[in-house]
Amino acid sequence: MALLDETAKGVYVIAVTPFTETGALDLDSTDRMVDFYLEKGATGLTVLGMMGEAPKLTADESRIFVRRVLKRVDGRVPVVAGVSASGFAAMRELSDSVMGDGAAGVMVAPPSTLRTDDQILSYYAMAAETLGPKTPFVLQDFPLVTQVQITPAVILKIVAAHPSCVMLKHEDWPGLAKISALRAASDQGGRRISILVGNGGMFLPEELSRGADGAMTGFAYPEMMVDVWKAHAAGQVERAHDLFDAYLPLARYEQQPGLGLALRKYTLAKRGAIASATLRKPGGALSKMDIADIERLIARQERRLKEIG
Amino acid sequence: MALLDETAKGVYVIAVTPFTETGALDLDSTDRMVDFYLEKGATGLTVLGMMGEAPKLTADESRIFVRRVLKRVDGRVPVVAGVSASGFAAMRELSDSVMGDGAAGVMVAPPSTLRTDDQILSYYAMAAETLGPKTPFVLQDFPLVTQVQITPAVILKIVAAHPSCVMLKHEDWPGLAKISALRAASDQGGRRISILVGNGGMFLPEELSRGADGAMTGFAYPEMMVDVWKAHAAGQVERAHDLFDAYLPLARYEQQPGLGLALRKYTLAKRGAIASATLRKPGGALSKMDIADIERLIARQERRLKEIG
Amino acid sequence: MALLDETAKGVYVIAVTPFTETGALDLDSTDRMVDFYLEKGATGLTVLGMMGEAPKLTADESRIFVRRVLKRVDGRVPVVAGVSASGFAAMRELSDSVMGDGAAGVMVAPPSTLRTDDQILSYYAMAAETLGPKTPFVLQDFPLVTQVQITPAVILKIVAAHPSCVMLKHEDWPGLAKISALRAASDQGGRRISILVGNGGMFLPEELSRGADGAMTGFAYPEMMVDVWKAHAAGQVERAHDLFDAYLPLARYEQQPGLGLALRKYTLAKRGAIASATLRKPGGALSKMDIADIERLIARQERRLKEIG
Amino acid sequence: MALLDETAKGVYVIAVTPFTETGALDLDSTDRMVDFYLEKGATGLTVLGMMGEAPKLTADESRIFVRRVLKRVDGRVPVVAGVSASGFAAMRELSDSVMGDGAAGVMVAPPSTLRTDDQILSYYAMAAETLGPKTPFVLQDFPLVTQVQITPAVILKIVAAHPSCVMLKHEDWPGLAKISALRAASDQGGRRISILVGNGGMFLPEELSRGADGAMTGFAYPEMMVDVWKAHAAGQVERAHDLFDAYLPLARYEQQPGLGLALRKYTLAKRGAIASATLRKPGGALSKMDIADIERLIARQERRLKEIG
Repeated sequence: MALLDETAKGVYVIAVTPFTETGALDLDSTDRMVDFYLEKGATGLTVLGMMGEAPKLTADESRIFVRRVLKRVDGRVPVVAGVSASGFAAMRELSDSVMGDGAAGVMVAPPSTLRTDDQILSYYAMAAETLGPKTPFVLQDFPLVTQVQITPAVILKIVAAHPSCVMLKHEDWPGLAKISALRAASDQGGRRISILVGNGGMFLPEELSRGADGAMTGFAYPEMMVDVWKAHAAGQVERAHDLFDAYLPLARYEQQPGLGLALRKYTLAKRGAIASATLRKPGGALSKMDIADIERLIARQERRLKEIG
Repeated sequence: MALLDETAKGVYVIAVTPFTETGALDLDSTDRMVDFYLEKGATGLTVLGMMGEAPKLTADESRIFVRRVLKRVDGRVPVVAGVSASGFAAMRELSDSVMGDGAAGVMVAPPSTLRTDDQILSYYAMAAETLGPKTPFVLQDFPLVTQVQITPAVILKIVAAHPSCVMLKHEDWPGLAKISALRAASDQGGRRISILVGNGGMFLPEELSRGADGAMTGFAYPEMMVDVWKAHAAGQVERAHDLFDAYLPLARYEQQPGLGLALRKYTLAKRGAIASATLRKPGGALSKMDIADIERLIARQERRLKEIG
Repeated sequence: MALLDETAKGVYVIAVTPFTETGALDLDSTDRMVDFYLEKGATGLTVLGMMGEAPKLTADESRIFVRRVLKRVDGRVPVVAGVSASGFAAMRELSDSVMGDGAAGVMVAPPSTLRTDDQILSYYAMAAETLGPKTPFVLQDFPLVTQVQITPAVILKIVAAHPSCVMLKHEDWPGLAKISALRAASDQGGRRISILVGNGGMFLPEELSRGADGAMTGFAYPEMMVDVWKAHAAGQVERAHDLFDAYLPLARYEQQPGLGLALRKYTLAKRGAIASATLRKPGGALSKMDIADIERLIARQERRLKEIG
Repeated sequence: MALLDETAKGVYVIAVTPFTETGALDLDSTDRMVDFYLEKGATGLTVLGMMGEAPKLTADESRIFVRRVLKRVDGRVPVVAGVSASGFAAMRELSDSVMGDGAAGVMVAPPSTLRTDDQILSYYAMAAETLGPKTPFVLQDFPLVTQVQITPAVILKIVAAHPSCVMLKHEDWPGLAKISALRAASDQGGRRISILVGNGGMFLPEELSRGADGAMTGFAYPEMMVDVWKAHAAGQVERAHDLFDAYLPLARYEQQPGLGLALRKYTLAKRGAIASATLRKPGGALSKMDIADIERLIARQERRLKEIG
């Protein structure tokens, strides 16, 4: 399988980790989910991300799940695996396992204790050394959750220092100016890495205009991101907005920290992508009113999509 | 002027504080802004909130600004003033001033150092004592900014202990279950306070369905909140969603922490509500691309509003 | 091996994890370190604590290290193992392993994302369920590092709800009033659990006076804690203070967050307890001036100990 | 009165703000306290610091209190006033007031929202501009309370950019390496500013060895800091440690976040420096056991001081 590099673009769907009703890994649903994402146009998959309940898996379960995904994907699209860990020994162990099994790259989010620019640079230097020069990695920049704020200048230093850093998973909020700053730097000769945006795609059309190469997020309708990205790439900016706007009410509703994954799994189960919406503890539970909300939003979304054709 | 009480409803617009190009208080624009908000249907105003740049004013400026707003409003709608302060002596001083000038009530957000339930309860006990029993107050629950997490049980204890707590400015995220829990408690006999929602109105239709009484937030198109609230109150839930969806792309764009106020003031200046979009330092500055984004979104919003009639 | 219970007292030394110069587990030094701690009077050992670099070990290394410690201890004193993990599946896996190998109990610190009382109670309910009723556990209360603030009332609720919670590792700061509150509650009929104090023993004599049963911390001179505890237990309070004061300048110096473990390992290596002072990355490094400081403090400490006899 | 500059050294005592039993400013005690500090050898005073309950005063009270201190000091030693505020308008107002009344300089701590190096640099640029080039200022570096981590490189950039930054109030923990780094930089030609250390003096002898010029902190026995500083300046390092060690048990006890100020005011009242130990709300309250602890520690301290002569 080809390794991830700076030219990556399109939509890397952040995959959920399917569980059975009793909380066991659901490997049959894993296959089904892979098929679902690829049918909807995913150009890549990302597993063991924050929305993949990675910390809730044992080390063995993580390896088994990634292996299953890789087998089902069978080289059709690149697969990135989250390897964020509380220490570098565990990071190396997981990274070596998934890369050996055929992953295209790994993703590393900073631990929440980092504060200063130097601490962040030092952490990614240790991470890059731990992963080794042959393992491409994605820098996940998600301050809302990690509480770590990384400036464009720091990202550029990481990119300059570590050729194996090939992608930014961009989910700073607000983050439009950050994309502009990074693109201005590569326009002036710096190495241009891939930027895929997160945050449930809530700013996707504007982010594409600023120079993002696509999205890496897990909204339960990945076709939104695929279609917006394609329209935008074709120069149809207003069309991209029309599509985006049609999905926005639901995308916004799914962006509820803590509850979002339960909403997403509910929708994916409803769409047949996974057998059960079960989350491992601790995880949000949906009320009847939550479900009524989401059903209304899905119905409205379908109507609106028909209107815009 | 009547005091704020538990029956408050509708849309209390979070007012900006207008400055001249050089950063001085712009009292002429203050009048104009008051007129603008009332024309758009505001049922109340809230000044010196977080989006009112309150901490950037001196104690004297705060008093002068509130006095000007109160004079222009002239009793037409209730005015709430934020009195959050680093200490109780300053809180008392400002509260006494604004209430003496005719404010209907005050608003208090918790300091970011509070962690445990007991600390929060103790803080609001001291605040209630500081304000005195004759000053109605609004509890501002905005964890994204304050970093203080207040459970429904703690809110209910504050409500039970302090009759002068008459309103919740609700901007937890996610926060729908919190509204449901508070309404369930008052349905079972607890004192029912007013709940007005914030967060730029990003969940307004669903929040109204859960029992919110309206909104207290500052989106630059307050008529969205007014119209959604009216449609919802009239039982026209789908209509409320249609209106909401038309404004959502812009409302979402305005919800960019740190940058949002600059976007809001830009739009208010464009709409003629204030003379200058100036923020006091430190404040976000808009790029050409930000302005292009917002202009596109406004144009699209106008088209969409025409379509839905 | 007997299980940990509420009667535990004395000094449970927080063991370091010895590494070779190249960062591999040093199992020979592990044996030597166990012998050293027991010679100095430890009444128990705690491994895989925060000062045991637990997050830097792989799952396999954690199990191997604990097994070696248990083998060397061979039932002479109880051994507690830290099982704090990013998820419950990994916690269960490690807990089952160490208890199966003969640990007396496990220790659980709260994840730094917890804020409200309910979140803390809910977390420990899930932890207690995960560990099972037959595994005694220690609640680690260390807000300086975890950023989680747990009130006495919340601790008492955890104690009441979970009979398997038998000990508090107390390292709140300030924390004297917390010990008093917990002891007042057990004096009035609540279940009395063991309280062992941490924070490098910086408040040991006063904490013993408030009702602590001893210490669980890792100061490189464990005999300080043992001797202070014995003198205090014998009613010789001034003597306990004399001993404490003699060691305080060094204990204080060791209490430097981030650097403390490097200082501790330096001293332990100097004393012959471990072969190398090596820390795994990321870890503090000592300067020549740090070493000069510590050598001066050790020399002064030895003089002072002779003076007081 | 001469302005503060880079040559400042010795002991600037962080003054408490005396209140009467009912919480009013106690201006008579203010005089007595000034006399007390000067008698104990203070080479400067700092008012409205964090331990001066500054946020609990109104703007007017702050000005009145500083004026009284300045009048009583009457030019005998320089007086620094804390002007940290939630916004720059309030900072300018207070700074202009105290400098006009004869303060030697002001002190600015960073707001807790700052994270990245750029944010910190930008904040101090705005602060320096706000204060104006004629107002010398002290950079307060106290991460334990502010949660802002400032690297040596960032401090050096602030020093290089703003000639009015003449002093560092150093209370990072651990912070010895920071002093060494800053002194290495000025040894190589950078502007050398004054470094006075805080944290209750808990690392004073080692900090002096690294190049600190003295202390700026508020331990209730300021003579400890004066005597340690003098002995150290005279090259009597072991004597400095002897003195330090004699006071350390009490200094350590006073270093209890939240409770420390109550302990300090208790001791100051006992020593006759102020009439009442009253704190404004919210403030820690001492239990009988706290008082018994402190009385025991004072008695032991007196004995020990006699022993060392």
